[in-house]
Amino acid sequence: MDTWLRSRMHELSDLHGVINLAAWDREVYLPAKAAPARAQQLSTLHALHHERLVDPRLGDALARAGESGDLTPDEQAMVRVLTRERERAVRMPARLVTALAAAQGEGIQAWREAREAKSFARFQPALAALLALRREQADAQGHDGERYDALLEGFEPGMRVQRLTPVLTALRDALIPMVAALASVRRPPPAFLDGRAYDTDRQWRFTMRLLKAVGFDLEAGRQDLSIHPFTNAQHAHDVRLTTRLDAAHPLSALFGTLHEAGHGLYEQGFATEHQRTPLAAVPSMGLHESQSRLWENLVGRGRPFWAHHFPALKEAFPQALADVDLDGFHAGINHVAPSLIRVEADEVTYNLHIVLRYELELALLRDELPVSELPSAWNERMRRYLGLTPPDDTQGVLQDIHWAWGEWGYFPTYALGNLYAASLHAAAVRALPELDAHLERGDTSTLRGWLHAQVHSQGFRLPAEERVRAVTGEGLTDRDFLQYLRAKYGALYGVTLKG
Amino acid sequence: MDTWLRSRMHELSDLHGVINLAAWDREVYLPAKAAPARAQQLSTLHALHHERLVDPRLGDALARAGESGDLTPDEQAMVRVLTRERERAVRMPARLVTALAAAQGEGIQAWREAREAKSFARFQPALAALLALRREQADAQGHDGERYDALLEGFEPGMRVQRLTPVLTALRDALIPMVAALASVRRPPPAFLDGRAYDTDRQWRFTMRLLKAVGFDLEAGRQDLSIHPFTNAQHAHDVRLTTRLDAAHPLSALFGTLHEAGHGLYEQGFATEHQRTPLAAVPSMGLHESQSRLWENLVGRGRPFWAHHFPALKEAFPQALADVDLDGFHAGINHVAPSLIRVEADEVTYNLHIVLRYELELALLRDELPVSELPSAWNERMRRYLGLTPPDDTQGVLQDIHWAWGEWGYFPTYALGNLYAASLHAAAVRALPELDAHLERGDTSTLRGWLHAQVHSQGFRLPAEERVRAVTGEGLTDRDFLQYLRAKYGALYGVTLKG
Repeated sequence: MDTWLRSRMHELSDLHGVINLAAWDREVYLPAKAAPARAQQLSTLHALHHERLVDPRLGDALARAGESGDLTPDEQAMVRVLTRERERAVRMPARLVTALAAAQGEGIQAWREAREAKSFARFQPALAALLALRREQADAQGHDGERYDALLEGFEPGMRVQRLTPVLTALRDALIPMVAALASVRRPPPAFLDGRAYDTDRQWRFTMRLLKAVGFDLEAGRQDLSIHPFTNAQHAHDVRLTTRLDAAHPLSALFGTLHEAGHGLYEQGFATEHQRTPLAAVPSMGLHESQSRLWENLVGRGRPFWAHHFPALKEAFPQALADVDLDGFHAGINHVAPSLIRVEADEVTYNLHIVLRYELELALLRDELPVSELPSAWNERMRRYLGLTPPDDTQGVLQDIHWAWGEWGYFPTYALGNLYAASLHAAAVRALPELDAHLERGDTSTLRGWLHAQVHSQGFRLPAEERVRAVTGEGLTDRDFLQYLRAKYGALYGVTLKG
Repeated sequence: MDTWLRSRMHELSDLHGVINLAAWDREVYLPAKAAPARAQQLSTLHALHHERLVDPRLGDALARAGESGDLTPDEQAMVRVLTRERERAVRMPARLVTALAAAQGEGIQAWREAREAKSFARFQPALAALLALRREQADAQGHDGERYDALLEGFEPGMRVQRLTPVLTALRDALIPMVAALASVRRPPPAFLDGRAYDTDRQWRFTMRLLKAVGFDLEAGRQDLSIHPFTNAQHAHDVRLTTRLDAAHPLSALFGTLHEAGHGLYEQGFATEHQRTPLAAVPSMGLHESQSRLWENLVGRGRPFWAHHFPALKEAFPQALADVDLDGFHAGINHVAPSLIRVEADEVTYNLHIVLRYELELALLRDELPVSELPSAWNERMRRYLGLTPPDDTQGVLQDIHWAWGEWGYFPTYALGNLYAASLHAAAVRALPELDAHLERGDTSTLRGWLHAQVHSQGFRLPAEERVRAVTGEGLTDRDFLQYLRAKYGALYGVTLKG
C-alpha cells in the first residue's frame, strides 16, 4: 500500500482516538462550565475527520489500491473497510448532517420535557421530525427498498432486516412461554439487596479486583467513575472504562464493570499490525456487545466464576452478606422477573424488550405505524410479551434516550450481542472442556486467550456474522442462547423449560 | 471580519484546546503503555494545526482583512497576532522541524544518561547539535544580527536582548550584595519542616481551600496530581492545574497550588468576546509567570494572607505546627539561602539563577562560549553570584531539562515574571490602599478583580511590556522588585538592605 494512503489511515485513526479522548473526558472530568466549549471542540474535530474522509484524493487512492492487485489480504480488508466508511460519509449530504444535529438537540430537549410531564405527546413532534430526517438519510445512503437496512448498516455492517427478522421473531416466540414458566415459580427477589448499604470505597476496590481477574490490562487502560458506565478506546493501549457506585445497588458496579471489561478486552486485543488502520476496529456493535455480555452474563453470572470470587466479596461486605452462601448469591444474581425497564431487565426477559423496540422501529421506518400510535403500540406489546402495563410513558415508550437522538437501528445490536455471546461461549466450551474448572480456580486466561485469538485480534477483517461463522461454524442463530437459558434457568428454578 | 477568517480562528483555537487536552491527559491519566500512541496523536494534531496555519488562503485572508480598514480595534489585534504567529510558522522549514524533533529526542536521552553518569561530557554532542539547529531556526525566522532575539520572540514576543540585558545586569548587581547581606545573618531554615510527616490527604484538602481562597473557579477548571505541577488551559472555562503531594515537603503543594492558581486565574479571565480567537491568549510567558509569581510570592508568602489562613493550617496539621506561630511560619516560608538548585531557590536568590542561565545562553548563541566550556562557565558564575560550587554537574549545568529540549530563550521569562509581578503588585497597592486589610480577612476579590480588569481580560490586545506600561505607567523595570525585597527581607532579617 502506498505511504500516502497509509499515512491518511494513521491520521484518521489518530483523529478518531482524539475525538474519543475528548468525549471520554467530557463524561468524567470536564468542568461544568466547559460543556459548550467542549461541544465546539468536538464539532471541529468531527468536521476535520469528515473533511479528510471525503477528500477526493482519498477516494482515488482507495480505488487505485483496490485495483492494484499487489495488496496483502489485510491491506485489501483495510481498503474495503475504509472505502465503505468513506462512501457512507460521501453519501451523507452536509445539509442533512446539520439538520440532524439540530433535530437531535430538539429531540433530547423535547424528550426531557416529555419525561418531566410524563406524557409522550410533548415528544411526538420532535420525534416525527427526526424520523423524517432519518428516512431522508436512509434514501441518501441507499437501500433495496428497506430503509431500515440503511440505518442498521451504521451499527451492524452487513446485517439486513430480511436476515434479522426471522431470528428475532423466533426468539420472541420462544421467550414468551419461557418467561411465563419462570414467573409461575414466583420466587421473591434476593433479600440481600434490600435496604442494606454497601460501602462505595469497597465496591470500587472490588471492581478493580474484577478488572484484574478478567485480565483487563490496567497499564493499557483505566477505570473511572461516570453517571452512565461506558467504554471508550483511543487506541488498543488506551482503553477507558467507567463504572458507577451506588451504596444501595452494589450489583450495578460489579456487573457494570464486568460488562465494560468485556468491551475493553476486545478493544485491547486488536493486533499490533492493525494499529492505526481501519482493521483496529470492531466489525459491529452487536459483536462488541457479545463480548460485554459474555463476560457480564455467561461468565460473570455463572457459578464457576463466583465459586472463586464470592469468599472475597463476603469479606468485603461481611455484614450485608452474612447470611448468604454461594448458591444463594448465584440464585440472587440470576433472579428472573418481567419488568418495565430494559436496563434493569434480567437476561431471560431482556431480549423481549429489544424485540418490542425492533418491531416498532421497523414499523415506523416502513410507515406502517404513525408516530402518534407509538405509545399504544408499545403498551400493547408490553402486555403481550411481558404481561405488564406501564403506569405512564416514562416507564414505557419514553424510557430510552435512543429515539430522542433519532437513533433507529441500534436496539437490535443488543439482541445480536446476546445471541453472538451465547454462540461464541458454546464454541469456547466445546474447544476448552476445562473452562469451568479454570474459572473455579480464578483462571480466566484460557477463555480470554481463546477469545483474543478467535475474535479480538481479528479486528475488522470480516463482518460480524462472518467472523462468528468462522469461529462457531454457524452464523446468527438463537439456538445456543436458548439452550443456555434452558439449562441455566431450568436448574436454578427447578423447572423444565421448553421453547 | 469575514466569516471564513473568523471560522478559521475558531478552528485553530479548538485544535489548540484539544492539543492541550491531550497533553494534560498524558501527564495525569494516560495508561503507561499508551505513551507512544499519544505521541502519535499529538503529532497528528500538531501537523493539522500547522497545515491550517500555513495555508496560503489564511495568509490571503489575513492580508485582505488587515487592509480592509473596517475592522474594530480588537479585530485588528486578532489579525496582527495571528499574522505574526503564521509568519513564524511559515518561516520554519519543515526539514528543520523534523530535524529538531529528532535532536530533541536525542537531547533528552543524552541528558538523562549524562545525569546518570554525573558528567556533562555525555550530553555535550547532543547539545551542540541542538544549538546548531536553533541557530538555523533563528536565521530562518529572521533577526537584526542578534540570533537570540529570534528565539526569545517565541516566548516573549516583542522583547529584545538590547532591552533585556541592561535590566538583568543591573538586577544581578543589586542582588549579589543583598544575598550576601542576608546570608551574613545566618538564620537556620525553619525547624517545622524537619523530619515531620504532613498527611497528604490533608495537604490536598488544603490546596483545594487555597484554590477557593484565591477565587480560582472550580466550575471552569480543576486540579489534579502530576509529577511536575503545571497549568494547562483548553478554554477560559476549562483550565486545569496540577499539584504534587509530598509528606515531607508540605510547602511544595501549598505554594505549587498558589503558583498554578495564578496562571489559572489568568487563563480563566480572558474576555468572553475574545473566546476562540487569537486574543484569548497571554501575550508572553513572562507576563503569564508574573501572575503565578504574584499569587505565589507577593500574596502567598505575605503575612496578610497567612494572617487569615494560618489558623486553618494549624488545625489541619496540629502536631507538626504545634510550636509554630504566625510570625514563625511567615519567617519560615521566606527563608533565604544561596542554593545550587533553581527550582528550590527562594525569591531573593532565584533571579541570580536566571541571570546566570541567560548570560550563558546569550554567549552560546553568539558563539562566544564553546559548548565544551559550559560547565566551567556555569561553575565560575555560580561562585561569583551565589558563592557556591556544585559538587557535580547534576547539581550544576545538568539540573534543568530546558536545554535538553534545545529551549533557549525561555529562562529569562522567569525573571521577567518576577519583575512584572512586583511592578503590577506595586500598582495594585497604589490603586487599592485597603488591599492588605482585605487579605487579612480572607478577601482576595479586590486584587483579583483589579488584575482581571487590568491584565487578564485584556488577553493579547497588547504585547507584554506595553500591557504592563498601560497598567503601571512604566514598562520593564527592576525598581519595584528590588524595593519589595528590601522592605520585606529587611524587616524579616532585621537588616538594612541596599542595592
